[in-house]
Amino acid sequence: MYSFKNDYSEGAHPQILNQILKINAEQNIGYGQDQYSELAKELIKNIIAKKDAAIHFLVGGTQTNLTVMAAFLRPYEAVIAPHTGHILVHETGAIESTGHKIISVATTEGKLTTEQILAVLKEHTDEHMVKPKMVYISQPTEIGTIYSYAELNKISELCKQKNLYFYIDGARLGSALMSEKNDVNLAQIAQLTDAFYIGGTKNGALFGEALVICRQKLQTDFRYHIKQRGAMLAKGQFLGVQFWEMFKAGLYYQLAEHANKMAKLLKMALQDLECEFLVNTDTNQIFPILSKRVIASLEKKYSFYIWQEISEDCAAVRLVTSWATSESVVQEFVADLKQLLSGAV
Amino acid sequence: MYSFKNDYSEGAHPQILNQILKINAEQNIGYGQDQYSELAKELIKNIIAKKDAAIHFLVGGTQTNLTVMAAFLRPYEAVIAPHTGHILVHETGAIESTGHKIISVATTEGKLTTEQILAVLKEHTDEHMVKPKMVYISQPTEIGTIYSYAELNKISELCKQKNLYFYIDGARLGSALMSEKNDVNLAQIAQLTDAFYIGGTKNGALFGEALVICRQKLQTDFRYHIKQRGAMLAKGQFLGVQFWEMFKAGLYYQLAEHANKMAKLLKMALQDLECEFLVNTDTNQIFPILSKRVIASLEKKYSFYIWQEISEDCAAVRLVTSWATSESVVQEFVADLKQLLSGAV
Amino acid sequence: MYSFKNDYSEGAHPQILNQILKINAEQNIGYGQDQYSELAKELIKNIIAKKDAAIHFLVGGTQTNLTVMAAFLRPYEAVIAPHTGHILVHETGAIESTGHKIISVATTEGKLTTEQILAVLKEHTDEHMVKPKMVYISQPTEIGTIYSYAELNKISELCKQKNLYFYIDGARLGSALMSEKNDVNLAQIAQLTDAFYIGGTKNGALFGEALVICRQKLQTDFRYHIKQRGAMLAKGQFLGVQFWEMFKAGLYYQLAEHANKMAKLLKMALQDLECEFLVNTDTNQIFPILSKRVIASLEKKYSFYIWQEISEDCAAVRLVTSWATSESVVQEFVADLKQLLSGAV
Amino acid sequence: MYSFKNDYSEGAHPQILNQILKINAEQNIGYGQDQYSELAKELIKNIIAKKDAAIHFLVGGTQTNLTVMAAFLRPYEAVIAPHTGHILVHETGAIESTGHKIISVATTEGKLTTEQILAVLKEHTDEHMVKPKMVYISQPTEIGTIYSYAELNKISELCKQKNLYFYIDGARLGSALMSEKNDVNLAQIAQLTDAFYIGGTKNGALFGEALVICRQKLQTDFRYHIKQRGAMLAKGQFLGVQFWEMFKAGLYYQLAEHANKMAKLLKMALQDLECEFLVNTDTNQIFPILSKRVIASLEKKYSFYIWQEISEDCAAVRLVTSWATSESVVQEFVADLKQLLSGAV
Repeated sequence: MYSFKNDYSEGAHPQILNQILKINAEQNIGYGQDQYSELAKELIKNIIAKKDAAIHFLVGGTQTNLTVMAAFLRPYEAVIAPHTGHILVHETGAIESTGHKIISVATTEGKLTTEQILAVLKEHTDEHMVKPKMVYISQPTEIGTIYSYAELNKISELCKQKNLYFYIDGARLGSALMSEKNDVNLAQIAQLTDAFYIGGTKNGALFGEALVICRQKLQTDFRYHIKQRGAMLAKGQFLGVQFWEMFKAGLYYQLAEHANKMAKLLKMALQDLECEFLVNTDTNQIFPILSKRVIASLEKKYSFYIWQEISEDCAAVRLVTSWATSESVVQEFVADLKQLLSGAV
Repeated sequence: MYSFKNDYSEGAHPQILNQILKINAEQNIGYGQDQYSELAKELIKNIIAKKDAAIHFLVGGTQTNLTVMAAFLRPYEAVIAPHTGHILVHETGAIESTGHKIISVATTEGKLTTEQILAVLKEHTDEHMVKPKMVYISQPTEIGTIYSYAELNKISELCKQKNLYFYIDGARLGSALMSEKNDVNLAQIAQLTDAFYIGGTKNGALFGEALVICRQKLQTDFRYHIKQRGAMLAKGQFLGVQFWEMFKAGLYYQLAEHANKMAKLLKMALQDLECEFLVNTDTNQIFPILSKRVIASLEKKYSFYIWQEISEDCAAVRLVTSWATSESVVQEFVADLKQLLSGAV
Repeated sequence: MYSFKNDYSEGAHPQILNQILKINAEQNIGYGQDQYSELAKELIKNIIAKKDAAIHFLVGGTQTNLTVMAAFLRPYEAVIAPHTGHILVHETGAIESTGHKIISVATTEGKLTTEQILAVLKEHTDEHMVKPKMVYISQPTEIGTIYSYAELNKISELCKQKNLYFYIDGARLGSALMSEKNDVNLAQIAQLTDAFYIGGTKNGALFGEALVICRQKLQTDFRYHIKQRGAMLAKGQFLGVQFWEMFKAGLYYQLAEHANKMAKLLKMALQDLECEFLVNTDTNQIFPILSKRVIASLEKKYSFYIWQEISEDCAAVRLVTSWATSESVVQEFVADLKQLLSGAV
Repeated sequence: MYSFKNDYSEGAHPQILNQILKINAEQNIGYGQDQYSELAKELIKNIIAKKDAAIHFLVGGTQTNLTVMAAFLRPYEAVIAPHTGHILVHETGAIESTGHKIISVATTEGKLTTEQILAVLKEHTDEHMVKPKMVYISQPTEIGTIYSYAELNKISELCKQKNLYFYIDGARLGSALMSEKNDVNLAQIAQLTDAFYIGGTKNGALFGEALVICRQKLQTDFRYHIKQRGAMLAKGQFLGVQFWEMFKAGLYYQLAEHANKMAKLLKMALQDLECEFLVNTDTNQIFPILSKRVIASLEKKYSFYIWQEISEDCAAVRLVTSWATSESVVQEFVADLKQLLSGAV
């Protein structure tokens, strides 16, 4: 049984694991104040060309999101997010648990627009309502689409004008950066946002997310927040060393590129088979629409999520590729699918 | 300037105020453990025919809602509410502030259906999502409509079957109970729900809401929750004595009936003038659609909320009547409106 | 049975109640934005000689404390308080419920010193601990003692130097202001603190506390916090009008003076009877030490709290007087006590 | 520079790391529902002889403590803890951040007694105070002492009688279990407590704590709590596999035994040098009292915490040993110390 369920089924890329091995026996200062964390931070600051950014390494995405929002927002301040946003759907109310409302906006293709943000602001007029203060988006979105530079810039401009924080959840940021359709780089993201995180877990790290806080006033005392939320790893050098390895020679990009390439192979093969898609994506997730008969057959050999029912006979499934997906497994899947579809005639 | 903005612009009905005066000089035990609170509780228990209910008097509605939800729900449990629900729109994130997510359901006429509740349950499948545990509705709804007994019973049955709590926000419960279309009484509400509150503030009390907790396991240690939320009034006798006065000889119903009657006078007059309404209501709120020219003229003499833009020229306004609205002011408003509309020809 | 248990057993002083009656039938804007609240705010700003203060009227003390701390503090910031502080002992964890730790300091006579504050600061060195950010004291303290101007000034200076907020819980502030030993006025308190509240509930109001926020940066969006905590009274004019009446011609001081005078009569009579006291107080609370036999006899006719066991035979009791305590009841109590004590010989 | 600062300066024991390597390339189900987590859970259930226990693997100790308390307690319920308790001192208010008060009890040698617990219960009488509901202790304590079976049993009995939860923070549980003075095993701890955790981070794991929930009613929906607090590791197999390795052939005990042995070598050498100790311990922490001159000299070559000033000239330092401390480094330290002390004469 091969799983296309997600991009975190395997452990770490061997190069990353190797670094962990290499420093394992060393004594290091705990809680993220070690030399490897420092090296990784410097590296990332160079890449984003922002020396005054504050960088923190956390273990997971939900943890990062909840720590950020608890830290940045006053109790009555709320987050605006697309209805597909991870914080709205798949974090068990972690944000609300810190006391903050998320204002859900129904979107198409998972992408928030400035018009929608403005509409939310217009509705929230006084102290009987929460005060929208942060815009949350994911790049790529939870359904694999990406924002263009122009779109991000427009949101960023609006946020500056309306005094909102702009935060990007980059759980799969690598995949967005390496998408064929992408026209934004990390340095630009650091210019456009108040904070964002670079996801490691879904791009070949054993665990870990690199939070970048761009706006200076949001940097104050952030380590207190990390500790208070139980998010400060004792042996922090193993977060630092992973990000160091990922960024010191481009490994982060290579892994994401591979994941995207595997998705593209799947997508092209499915297009050749005249398959339709729920949404058109150019990252490491694709959402082909298949007949339930075909799905049932595929499930004998592959695991994946059935994403959405389309009709009585059809459903969209989600196939996720990763740094660890081999071209041979993709070809095998395509071959199996071909046979199933031809058998359907 | 006469205000139709809400039903809490004036103080208390003279009979209620008189009771406050009468006991003012007495010494009473504090924090709701006085004799008047006891009398009022017994009275209400008799009316709802539920001796094992627990009754608590709180000062306001938001306070009551947030104390209830913080008390009843475990951290990961969520509330299902219609998108017009007061807790979703007009309580500055008070519920989220206690850590709980509210799942918003888009409704027509402000009323939640069992189909919608079932759809929410279906979407929430595992521990990566919050667990829906309470159904919140308002009777009447925030836009003046009411649930029938059959509708409430259907929701109640579903809640029992799915192990959800059913809670009714009765900020304007009197107005629902006295609506011409109403077929539910307080005793039935106590049978159908796990908890509900009987609103005083919007029906002639100086302040105060009577929370009725019907399900026994939810009654445990509730006074701790009240105190922790800062919601325990020191001179609690003045809550008790108001509810005693309101319920000992039917004053609560009379006040609500008057409010409804005034709304009906307005509604009938507006219908005679061939006015349309945003929503058809039979309580103390009406939502006529008027031209912006007429609205502007009316605003010189009357205050009210412009509820929703309908077109470039028209908007729906909200007119609220209360126990304190006099028939003469209604007639004057109608006369003014008539003149304005004829002038429009 | 006459109660010396507290200073909130009765309702409101007749003059205050009379104002409520007078405006009862009027329509007023809700939620504290009415004309009477404005008048009362202007009055208090004049008295404290601080035009840029922000004043808000809330219903009760716990509510005020929790709203203040939730509003002023970031999640990891903590409050320093004497171990007898109301927020530590008698508010059911209301402050912790908003997420903040209170650091308890063991004190004598309920009063915090700058040495103690400095010791707390010294212990809290990094992000593995909370960050002390607010000093909370009560004036008078929960055991009836008061801080001198010099003591308050020293704390204030330290707070400024160490960037701490200085907040005074003034539930019984009137009694402190009118104490024979007092050398601080309201204007000075406003100069020394970042915020404080003037208690109404325990000094003749039906309910209500006037929160004064002196530091401008803490004033921002405070109404959002009030609403979010369920602490915004719908018919806010009845808070405003009470404080207006209390302060427009000195009634607030007169009521407190009377309460203190009654306590002094009790204290002097007890001293004449060679009674000792747990703590020496000059406000409206006294803590005489009596034999348990005498206590048991007194309890047949009077109610009061047994505060602390002193020995197998003796205990300290708390006697609280108020604006409503009559001289005759004090004389009766003294006479009864005299008889009991002589009978003991 | 060699560090005796803590027991988490190095990475993982090679055997544990080797297991991580071995399963790295495998696809596993995420979020702790993998086969290795299952194996580890079964193993631990066997060791504690409690088939109906629920076991969860979390990344760190603060995270585990806050998730447990947020999950087990109702909002007004509080924790009783010794004043040295980790949750009180070194978790940045993480527990209060979830809304719960911790009641601090001043203890000697960091150990809570039943008398102290009873005293706390006696003081908390009604709904104006929090309700003590959980007893928190650490085994070993934060200052290296351990509870005997008799002491734990007495607390356990009291908790059962008073309906309190008994929870043990086992961050260094291995060291307690392998202490020469220890007379309690894991199965007994599981019998005595409602929940406890077995610390991995401080005993040779790369990261990870194994939470054991013994009381069944506290097990319900616990994965929701884990997820909500951001404490659910995506690649959970790497938590499971570490605990599997640690417990399948006794490695956990061997590592703790080694740490204790190294501490004992230090302790004996120091005793030979007639050094006194702040507290007498038999685990992997010792607290010798040294002259400040000696401390300053040692600090050139070794790092450790200065724990407490004893006099103008002396201070107690904390030396922590671990699974990774070599006998040679201990001997070197002892030799250096000997020289310093002789030089002092």
